[in-house]
Amino acid sequence: MSIESIVQSTRIVLASRPDGAPTTENFRLEAVNLPELTEGQVLIRIIYLSLDPYMRGRMSAAESYAEPVEIGEVMVGGTVGQVVESRHPGFESGDYVLAYAGWQSHAVVVGDQLQKLDPAAAPLSTALGVLGMPGFTAYSGLLKIGQPKEGETVVVAAASGPVGSAVGQIAKLKGARAVGIAGGPEKCAYLLDELGFDAAIDHRAPDFGEQLRAAVPDGIDVYFENVGGAVAAAVLPLLNEYARVPVCGLIAHYNDATAPEGPDRLPEFLSRVLVKSLTIRGFIMAEFVGEMYTDFLRDVSGWIRDGRFAYREDFVDGIENAPTAFIGLLEGRNFGKMLVRVAEES
Amino acid sequence: MSIESIVQSTRIVLASRPDGAPTTENFRLEAVNLPELTEGQVLIRIIYLSLDPYMRGRMSAAESYAEPVEIGEVMVGGTVGQVVESRHPGFESGDYVLAYAGWQSHAVVVGDQLQKLDPAAAPLSTALGVLGMPGFTAYSGLLKIGQPKEGETVVVAAASGPVGSAVGQIAKLKGARAVGIAGGPEKCAYLLDELGFDAAIDHRAPDFGEQLRAAVPDGIDVYFENVGGAVAAAVLPLLNEYARVPVCGLIAHYNDATAPEGPDRLPEFLSRVLVKSLTIRGFIMAEFVGEMYTDFLRDVSGWIRDGRFAYREDFVDGIENAPTAFIGLLEGRNFGKMLVRVAEES
Repeated sequence: MSIESIVQSTRIVLASRPDGAPTTENFRLEAVNLPELTEGQVLIRIIYLSLDPYMRGRMSAAESYAEPVEIGEVMVGGTVGQVVESRHPGFESGDYVLAYAGWQSHAVVVGDQLQKLDPAAAPLSTALGVLGMPGFTAYSGLLKIGQPKEGETVVVAAASGPVGSAVGQIAKLKGARAVGIAGGPEKCAYLLDELGFDAAIDHRAPDFGEQLRAAVPDGIDVYFENVGGAVAAAVLPLLNEYARVPVCGLIAHYNDATAPEGPDRLPEFLSRVLVKSLTIRGFIMAEFVGEMYTDFLRDVSGWIRDGRFAYREDFVDGIENAPTAFIGLLEGRNFGKMLVRVAEES
Repeated sequence: MSIESIVQSTRIVLASRPDGAPTTENFRLEAVNLPELTEGQVLIRIIYLSLDPYMRGRMSAAESYAEPVEIGEVMVGGTVGQVVESRHPGFESGDYVLAYAGWQSHAVVVGDQLQKLDPAAAPLSTALGVLGMPGFTAYSGLLKIGQPKEGETVVVAAASGPVGSAVGQIAKLKGARAVGIAGGPEKCAYLLDELGFDAAIDHRAPDFGEQLRAAVPDGIDVYFENVGGAVAAAVLPLLNEYARVPVCGLIAHYNDATAPEGPDRLPEFLSRVLVKSLTIRGFIMAEFVGEMYTDFLRDVSGWIRDGRFAYREDFVDGIENAPTAFIGLLEGRNFGKMLVRVAEES
C-alpha cells in the first residue's frame, strides 16, 4: 500500500455501554483511514463477520474472561477476509483468511494471528460457524464435559443455533437421544426434519414445562447450558443422578442489569447439585483447542461430507446492519448461525 | 436369646416432620421389645451413635438421595456396637461392630451388613468420624474432585468439624495452603494450633469478608462446600479460573422451609461458573467407596499413627440427649465430631 492509496475502513465502534438490552444508540458507524502496513502485517478486506452472544459481555465493563471493548473502540468479532496486501511472508494478495478483526470493512492485522482458509475445502463462512468457534464449543463441551453415553438423554436449548444444532447432532452420532429447545414452530420443525433431533420443544409454548417432562421419560443425563433463565429452571428438576451440565453461555441473562427478583434460587440449585451428584462445569472453548481442535475439524468436516451433519446460516448484508442484527440475535430472532455479509466473496 | 429374656431397646423415633429448624417436639423417646433373632441376625448393644448434618434431610419428606425416615420410625444413623448374641457365623458375642443401627440402645441387625472393628487398631469411636464416613467424605471429595495441587489454596468451612478438619489437614499433606472457616475464636485457635491450617477465620466476625479476602492473596483454587449460605457467598467472587468446588453439604440451608428472599443469586452464580470455568460437583461419599476406601483407611490411619493428623470428638452422654445434641449440631454448637455415648465400651 502506498501512501497515495489510503484505505478507509467503515466500522462499528462501541459508543456507550448498554444498561440492560443493547440499543442501536450503543453503536456508532464511522470511517477511518487505515495506517500503512509495517513488516509482518497484512491488509485484509472483510467478507463475513460473525455475530455471537458472547459479544454482549464485551460491551460491559464487568469482569469477564476477556477484556471489555473500550468506548470508541471497534467491536470485536471473528471474521473471514481476503488479503489485499501483505508484508508477511506467509500470505499473499488474494488469500482467504480467518481473522479476529471485528466489525469493520477492512483491517490491518498481524499476519501471525491469521489462519489461511481453503475455499475449495468448505464454504468460507463455515469457518465462523459449524467449522469454527461455535462448532468447536459444541464439540469440546459436549464430548469433554457432557460425555454422553449411548442411550443417554441430551438436552440443549437455542437448538437451531450454531452451538445447539451441533450439540444435538453430535449427541445423536454418539448414540444418545437429543432433545432440542427452540423458539417457535418453524425452528422446532427444523430440529426434527433437518437435524434429526428425537424431540423438539417450543419454549414459548404455555405448557413448555410439561412438554419437556414428557420428552425425557428417562430424565436428563446431559444438559448443555447456553441460555439459562426459564429453560434452565425447567431442566433442573429433571436432571438424573450424575448428570453433567457444561455451561458455555447464559444468553437469557446477558442483558440483566441487576440480579433478578427473588426468591433466591441458589440454595435450591446447590441442594440439587448435592442430592443428585451433579457436575456443573463452565468452559470457554479455548481451553480445549490444543487437545481437540484437530479431531474436531476432521470429525465435523467428515460428517458434513458424508451428509450426516447439517448446518444453517442466517445472513444480513452490510456492516451498517450489524448492530440491529446483533440486537435481534440476543432476542432469538436469527435462525441459524448469524453472519454479516460485509462484502462479496470475490 | 430365649423368649424368657426379652431385650428392650430405648430409642428415639421421628414424632413429626420439622418446619424449619427441628425442635425436641419432633422426636419421641420410647422403649420397644426387640424380636427374637432369626438366622443370620445379630443382637447388638449400641455404644456410640454418630450425629451428622445429613440426618436433617432424612427428617423431611422432600426428595433426596435417600428415603426419608417415616413418622414413628427410629431415626437413622451410624453406630458402633458390641454383639450380645449372634445367629450369624461371622460374629460372636463380644465382637465390636460398625452398624447403621440408628438412635437406639439395642438393635437386631442383619449380620451381613455389619463390619467388624478391631478395638486395638484405633479407638472405636473413630469408625464414626476420622476413620469413617466424615473422614472419607473429606478424603474422597478433596482428592477426587478438589484435586488440590502443590501451592494451591484450599478453603473449607465448618473447619473444626470432622469433615472440615480432615479436608484442611489432607490439603496441607498434599502441599496446598489450607484456610479454615469456623465459628468463634476457640475453634479458630484450634485450627491454627492443633491442625496446622495456614489461616483461620471466624465467620461471625463483622469483617468476615475482608478477612477472607486477605487470607487468600492468590485467590481460591478449591472450595470444599459443606455449609452454603453467607460463607459460600463470600467465597464465590474469590474463586480462581478452573477452581473446583466439591459440594458435600449445605448445613446453612437444611432448615430452610422455603426459598430465601431475593434477589435471585442463581444467574450471577452461573455467570461466574461460566466466566471462571468453574467445576461445581455434588457427591455422596458412597460413590467413591469401591475405588478409594482402602486407600483412605491406609493413608489416614497412617497419618494419625505418625502424628501428622489430629481429630477431635465431642461426646454427649445418653440416647435421651441425642435430639438436643443434634439440634445444637445444626447450629454449630458442637466442637469436633459429635457423638452420643449410648453405653460404656465394656
